[in-house]
Amino acid sequence: MHKPQDRHILDFLFQPRSVAVIGASKRPLTIGNRIVRNLMDMQFTGPIYPVHPKDSEIEGLAAYPSISHVPGDVDLAHIIVKNVQVPRVLADCARKGVKIAIINTAGFKEVGPEGARLEAELVRLAQSNGIRIFGPNCQGIINTDPEVNAYCNFTFTKPLAGYISIFSQSGGVGEVINNRLCELGEGLRMYASTGNACDIDCPEILEFWGDDPDTRVIICHLENIEDPGNFIKVAREVSQKKPILVMLTGRTSIGARAVAFHCGGTITGRIGDESLAAESGVLAFRSLEEICQAARAFVHMKIPRGRRVGVITNTGGPGIIAADELSEAGCELPEPDEATKKILRSALYPEAIVSNPVDVLATAGPEHFRAVLEAMLGDPNIDSLLFSFVTPFFVDCEAVARVVVEARAKTHKPIVCVVMTDKTLWSSTLEIFRQAGIPTYAQPEIGARVLAAMTTYGLIAS
Amino acid sequence: MHKPQDRHILDFLFQPRSVAVIGASKRPLTIGNRIVRNLMDMQFTGPIYPVHPKDSEIEGLAAYPSISHVPGDVDLAHIIVKNVQVPRVLADCARKGVKIAIINTAGFKEVGPEGARLEAELVRLAQSNGIRIFGPNCQGIINTDPEVNAYCNFTFTKPLAGYISIFSQSGGVGEVINNRLCELGEGLRMYASTGNACDIDCPEILEFWGDDPDTRVIICHLENIEDPGNFIKVAREVSQKKPILVMLTGRTSIGARAVAFHCGGTITGRIGDESLAAESGVLAFRSLEEICQAARAFVHMKIPRGRRVGVITNTGGPGIIAADELSEAGCELPEPDEATKKILRSALYPEAIVSNPVDVLATAGPEHFRAVLEAMLGDPNIDSLLFSFVTPFFVDCEAVARVVVEARAKTHKPIVCVVMTDKTLWSSTLEIFRQAGIPTYAQPEIGARVLAAMTTYGLIAS
Repeated sequence: MHKPQDRHILDFLFQPRSVAVIGASKRPLTIGNRIVRNLMDMQFTGPIYPVHPKDSEIEGLAAYPSISHVPGDVDLAHIIVKNVQVPRVLADCARKGVKIAIINTAGFKEVGPEGARLEAELVRLAQSNGIRIFGPNCQGIINTDPEVNAYCNFTFTKPLAGYISIFSQSGGVGEVINNRLCELGEGLRMYASTGNACDIDCPEILEFWGDDPDTRVIICHLENIEDPGNFIKVAREVSQKKPILVMLTGRTSIGARAVAFHCGGTITGRIGDESLAAESGVLAFRSLEEICQAARAFVHMKIPRGRRVGVITNTGGPGIIAADELSEAGCELPEPDEATKKILRSALYPEAIVSNPVDVLATAGPEHFRAVLEAMLGDPNIDSLLFSFVTPFFVDCEAVARVVVEARAKTHKPIVCVVMTDKTLWSSTLEIFRQAGIPTYAQPEIGARVLAAMTTYGLIAS
Repeated sequence: MHKPQDRHILDFLFQPRSVAVIGASKRPLTIGNRIVRNLMDMQFTGPIYPVHPKDSEIEGLAAYPSISHVPGDVDLAHIIVKNVQVPRVLADCARKGVKIAIINTAGFKEVGPEGARLEAELVRLAQSNGIRIFGPNCQGIINTDPEVNAYCNFTFTKPLAGYISIFSQSGGVGEVINNRLCELGEGLRMYASTGNACDIDCPEILEFWGDDPDTRVIICHLENIEDPGNFIKVAREVSQKKPILVMLTGRTSIGARAVAFHCGGTITGRIGDESLAAESGVLAFRSLEEICQAARAFVHMKIPRGRRVGVITNTGGPGIIAADELSEAGCELPEPDEATKKILRSALYPEAIVSNPVDVLATAGPEHFRAVLEAMLGDPNIDSLLFSFVTPFFVDCEAVARVVVEARAKTHKPIVCVVMTDKTLWSSTLEIFRQAGIPTYAQPEIGARVLAAMTTYGLIAS
């Protein structure tokens, strides 16, 4: 955490020393109750100040009739009161010295001209009173840093601490991503869902996360880029430091119409996801599943130094699926070097296919995999490996997994692992990968798309 | 099952009354042991005859020194002996009156010219002796029909009985598909992985499954279509009866090179997956995950009668993702009829978005969903619905699920359900969908792609 005198303005958002919840409630199943409970459940490290006109105690915490009655300094305030009351409460917050207000309340720009006027009033108020706005019509933020433990958000996913930060314009999409990463056992670093984003916006947050050493990869969901020029400028800088995986929606005219309704008003500065990627160095995705799976790979693996992929498989079919996907995504599958081929011919079964993909055959055991991994990793024509493994019942699969873990420890070349199995029967094999911090993919096309994304990033950031 | 006198030749493969395993073994972790065990574990309804030169008992069953010593009739025989011994054993089988031999043994066409000669010898032998070959270099078949319970295969996935039949040229890919369907709780009808397919081939099996009343949908993985003309002819006929979901691999030059190695020799009759789909009426996929998810939908849902989709969502973002995907896949998202809009405006919250996608807002409860489902299903401009639901903690989500189940019971229009949630915390909500036989999708893009595939099929088969 930065020292008080040189705190970044967004430190008050992501590393607040205290949080007020204006519109806190005793009633379960309300947002004002849920935010207080989420802060408590996540063991927020600073004081929590519920604010309620009448109640003097909420969830066991002292509650205050207004923000001005709160005894201590307040870095961050949630505002959950009715939309027409928000300007007054925001002004109160500014007077109290609150640095940032997360306005969860809806009923602004997204509902039409009257809401838009109310939202414009908030922006004016904030600018003239030295307070920043996150939202309105938004979820909020999460920071899993154990020194902070801030769950300033009303959603239900309790993430593990990790290295992926999620920006999502849509709260629903952000929640789907956060939830899926949890299911995959992958940790979150920070989360931000900005809703209308009338003040603090995506580029400002990207820039901040670019400098956060524990954010290794950023997932970014966008519906409407207000100022594409600024986004591209910031994304280009941040992309040099860490990958930004973008899902830009509203690509079609039907989708864009829906975005206009969702964000309120017309869409400014439309840009396609492919040209966005070309201009800014972000990686474009069209699937939430794939964006999550790719993020896992970026957390745990090194970046390939070139586009030449070696595929190692123990069953032909999945290797061919991987080869198609890699090839379509711009990767190369060069034939192994003659020296490599010679090693493979002597180390593998005579019926094995010594080409690329290398098919070691289903009967291959750990010693065959050790040989092929060493030979392919040592091949100067290969920048990365895709390891495609269906677990045969007649092979010591745990030993094969250990061979992969050992090989990976000795190389700078990434090895993306596709492990196709019954997750219950072969749980001990999967556990060896997990313990070593190696993500595994259940389908060859997913592993291949993930490796292709890593390869693209390697070319962007080199 | 057909009566003995009018049995289809493939009844002897998929509904064998008895199975011999030539090359059966006492040793665990061998294919010869595994096939015997799999037949026993699945409670195959006919006699199992292990054949072994010396052992007189294997896994508690009487074993015989050769197929000619087996006391009863044998419909189907597995052959697992060394490749050079296969011709002799096959001739023995023919003499015994075995109708079909599954040759699991490898070392034929796929290993080069010598193997190809051996394989050609098998074909000649079979033709002149009145026996059919499944394989060689293959896994085998499964039939979950409780009157048969045939697991003539050495893999590890124990499927539930169901309505999806899987054809896979590659055993590895077939196993990945079978395993994934199991994970999804979806049942299998029949399974066939033909390997080299020197005799019984994909079109012959497709035709057979076309007439199987309990096969509702066919998943088909192909690497090399030997005779595209014949495949297209058969697929076009079968597609009129039930959907065929195809994953054709080796699309790229790199992939095709790998197919040539995998299948042995050169590739004949290459055809792209898109032109294959256009000419034959199959649905082309490029993802094993999506092919499995689409198959689930075809099992449980009616086919849309047109391309006009209504999207209902309680959070904007996922609805927009669905709109993009549907639109890109050729679906239309017409604006609701004026009468529908009127109903929606009075039934939903004033801030709800009455367009397509309809955004009912996160605070919408069961009564709102009932109104919007009824109105959209009653709209003459809508052929199908995509229901996109993030489970808010402040909504009675189980009640919403029941509303969907009720709505679905009263309509011929399919409702594809995307339910985005924590599967543990909202398990009771998911269970309501499951009990009603409604598959749910965790990501909007998957639900949308599935509905688009159903829409395409509706246009093909109408």
